[in-house]
Amino acid sequence: MKIEFTPIGIIHTPFKTIENIPIQPAAGKTIEGWIEIFDEYTEGLSDLDGFSHIYLLFHLHRSKNYSLKLIPFLDTVKRGVFSTRSPARPNPLGLSIVEIVSIHDNIINIKGIDILDGSPLIDIKPYVPDFEVTKNIKKGWFEGKEKIIPGKLSDDRFKE
Amino acid sequence: MKIEFTPIGIIHTPFKTIENIPIQPAAGKTIEGWIEIFDEYTEGLSDLDGFSHIYLLFHLHRSKNYSLKLIPFLDTVKRGVFSTRSPARPNPLGLSIVEIVSIHDNIINIKGIDILDGSPLIDIKPYVPDFEVTKNIKKGWFEGKEKIIPGKLSDDRFKE
Repeated sequence: MKIEFTPIGIIHTPFKTIENIPIQPAAGKTIEGWIEIFDEYTEGLSDLDGFSHIYLLFHLHRSKNYSLKLIPFLDTVKRGVFSTRSPARPNPLGLSIVEIVSIHDNIINIKGIDILDGSPLIDIKPYVPDFEVTKNIKKGWFEGKEKIIPGKLSDDRFKE
Repeated sequence: MKIEFTPIGIIHTPFKTIENIPIQPAAGKTIEGWIEIFDEYTEGLSDLDGFSHIYLLFHLHRSKNYSLKLIPFLDTVKRGVFSTRSPARPNPLGLSIVEIVSIHDNIINIKGIDILDGSPLIDIKPYVPDFEVTKNIKKGWFEGKEKIIPGKLSDDRFKE
């Protein structure tokens, strides 16, 4: 049983290698990039300019292998892959919330990026906090590590 | 150019038809369901029990067609598909944040569900608000419609 998606565009960022990427959007707040949406999907961008933030769902196209347990960037012991945001996962599907800077025709300029250059874009969804139930959050192994994120960059542990 | 994913499990919910589903997790707060993770991925669930909420990324497997502009559940005029959460989109990829009730072996009991029964699960990511940059949010066409969500159900507009 396979699920097949077709890219709707390409994400362009300053990050050409899998090392030295901000490990989350919160670590790459000032980083700008742009999305090229393929012409046949441009009409679907209507009304997106009213939103400040969007979810990007994209292919982690350089992620070739995975382990079910791994040491995440913010930790020193092995954790189950589904409790991490590691790019090396059974289905290499990336999720980021980025800020919209501007939209011109089929180009979306974005800010706050932790994404590898050339990543194929699968979907865009508007970020609307009211859609989520987010009270009484427990943060598992990540609890107490919040202060490490700003400016934190990836290393080569997930290099193919 | 195609991107291929393999389901890691199946999402079981009370919703057997595409109508009358809470339109967002916020509309289905009390609804419970469960996820069956396929045996070969169970080890990847380690440490997930420390988190209260997870992102589910899943195949909107009953979504067959799409339009680039459509009238979303919370509106009365056509909007670009990427500015909506409509299940009828170029790549039928669903995103929900749900609450973890409990985890036993390869079964995750969840709460706060807006997902169709039988949806193939593609990925799980921990929900950690600190990972996101979410200040100065603008909510586009959705602004002012927040009060409609609680208890709001889908209708048949996206029926295949």
